[in-house]
Amino acid sequence: MNASEYLAAKGKEVNEEIEKIIPKTPEEVYGIIWDYLNRGGKRLRPAISMLSCDAVGGDSRKTLPIAAAIELFHLYTLLHDDIEDNSDMRRGKPTAHRIYGIPMAINAGDGLFPLVFKATLRLEMPPEKIVGAQKILSDAFGVVLEGQGIELNWYKENRFDINEKDYFEMVSGKTGALIGACCNVGAFLGGGNEKQRKSLREFGEKIGIAFQIQDDILNIIGEEKKYGKEIGGDISEGKRTLMVIYALKKATKEDKERLIQILSERTKDQGKINEAIGILKKYNSHEYARKHAEKLINDAKEKLKTLPKNEASERLLELADFFIKREV
Amino acid sequence: MNASEYLAAKGKEVNEEIEKIIPKTPEEVYGIIWDYLNRGGKRLRPAISMLSCDAVGGDSRKTLPIAAAIELFHLYTLLHDDIEDNSDMRRGKPTAHRIYGIPMAINAGDGLFPLVFKATLRLEMPPEKIVGAQKILSDAFGVVLEGQGIELNWYKENRFDINEKDYFEMVSGKTGALIGACCNVGAFLGGGNEKQRKSLREFGEKIGIAFQIQDDILNIIGEEKKYGKEIGGDISEGKRTLMVIYALKKATKEDKERLIQILSERTKDQGKINEAIGILKKYNSHEYARKHAEKLINDAKEKLKTLPKNEASERLLELADFFIKREV
Repeated sequence: MNASEYLAAKGKEVNEEIEKIIPKTPEEVYGIIWDYLNRGGKRLRPAISMLSCDAVGGDSRKTLPIAAAIELFHLYTLLHDDIEDNSDMRRGKPTAHRIYGIPMAINAGDGLFPLVFKATLRLEMPPEKIVGAQKILSDAFGVVLEGQGIELNWYKENRFDINEKDYFEMVSGKTGALIGACCNVGAFLGGGNEKQRKSLREFGEKIGIAFQIQDDILNIIGEEKKYGKEIGGDISEGKRTLMVIYALKKATKEDKERLIQILSERTKDQGKINEAIGILKKYNSHEYARKHAEKLINDAKEKLKTLPKNEASERLLELADFFIKREV
Repeated sequence: MNASEYLAAKGKEVNEEIEKIIPKTPEEVYGIIWDYLNRGGKRLRPAISMLSCDAVGGDSRKTLPIAAAIELFHLYTLLHDDIEDNSDMRRGKPTAHRIYGIPMAINAGDGLFPLVFKATLRLEMPPEKIVGAQKILSDAFGVVLEGQGIELNWYKENRFDINEKDYFEMVSGKTGALIGACCNVGAFLGGGNEKQRKSLREFGEKIGIAFQIQDDILNIIGEEKKYGKEIGGDISEGKRTLMVIYALKKATKEDKERLIQILSERTKDQGKINEAIGILKKYNSHEYARKHAEKLINDAKEKLKTLPKNEASERLLELADFFIKREV
């Protein structure tokens, strides 16, 4: 089984658990959640969490409710991020707020919040384990939303003075923390020791950041059909990606001003979007970002050297590579 | 101590607990939460939860984290409801999304979600008690958001064929369930038996619905300075209150059509708002709603007869009356 096949198999297990958690009615809330759920998604975070459990010698099948809780939280962020970023498409279809309006899309996202709680309570382990897992997850959920808040404020204040340090702080929160917590909570439930949990958490944080960088690269140079979102959507959103930060540092005064202008406009004009992509490519920003992502993956893999060699730890290494080789 | 003084004293305790839970930074998330927190609020729900604990012979000081969790969830719904309802004012000041924009206001609300989780984990009781309390709360949180979703859909589809049964189903979820859960979880943590918990839950559900009806009445006939929201704001929001449903049933064809027209317009025109309020008053809708609220309070008080007579149970009876006598 290659990484994609493995993810598909794991995803099926996770979906079955999630389907036990989301009610059918009222449709006014759960219909919207089912819609997003059924659009697919790789269920990467649950898979990583379960592998981390197995990697330290645990039995990940027992941790399915936590894997489901993580994916439900992820769905929650997708529903709200799409509104916050004014995105038109998600996984090849119109975003929830485009279909159902902003009020109902906010509320549907909120409807996932109690379900995340409830998912954790399905864990058939001693209550100490449940609250331990909740502690890890709720800490990470907080950090994710903090990262998101910092990024949203950049847009609100139309800031372009973001440097790489600012960027990495933000993305460590927004994307790194959750994947780090996936690993940590999996290892915790699997009975891993402190050192193993720390190594896995750091592994997760690094591959999480690399995942985000790769996502941003695909948004600029990917194929829309595979990618499922608008290519160049990040330009419309004015997103301060690592590529943008690099290009703004390297570009001529003229290119810099033009890039800032287009990003500030929140334009859906394809000509302008292509122009901005052209500027990013002119300075090889995507190559720069790719190298960064590769370095993160290598550092991440280094962290796993202390783990026992087994099928699960090998699979985690493979997934790390998949994170930056994927085209979807 | 009268009901207001009692609530002020309890509110202080709850605030101290909440202040330990909400971080100071990043301001991009927590600044918005602190803003809403510091606007005041009666902390009714925490007070009711703690009284329910004491009423069954528990020590409510030990349940402060749960009381705080409930208030944090309530704050969460306020932040998002204000966006969903397109409200301009909250507790005498502009709503969060008017100040910080919709994206940051959504995200700040979301920032409360992990804090609710974390608040429950502060409970210094055996983990079985923590997960027991979480189960009660997460069930109620779900029902609240379901009620909200149903109501939002009425607006979205501009439905005016809502009858009293529909209305009470919606409001039982949106407002009744949380206050019912306040009582239930307080009694659970205080060691109350099944019968006591059920009585208290039903008490809470009924006073919760009465509270909402009173809130809707104040929105129409209250004083803006005391009330802290725009008088007639519910007209702008097109809200299907018990008063509206009653008036639509009783009104002449002409009045009915006019009321529907104004409610559909989502108008901020004070002349039209006053006209709609005039139609509601013409049919004594506010008196009809008040009688409903009074009956609910009487039924609720009846439920408490099975409880031991003590200071806390007396206080609950007093609060029930306060719910419909308040002007703020």
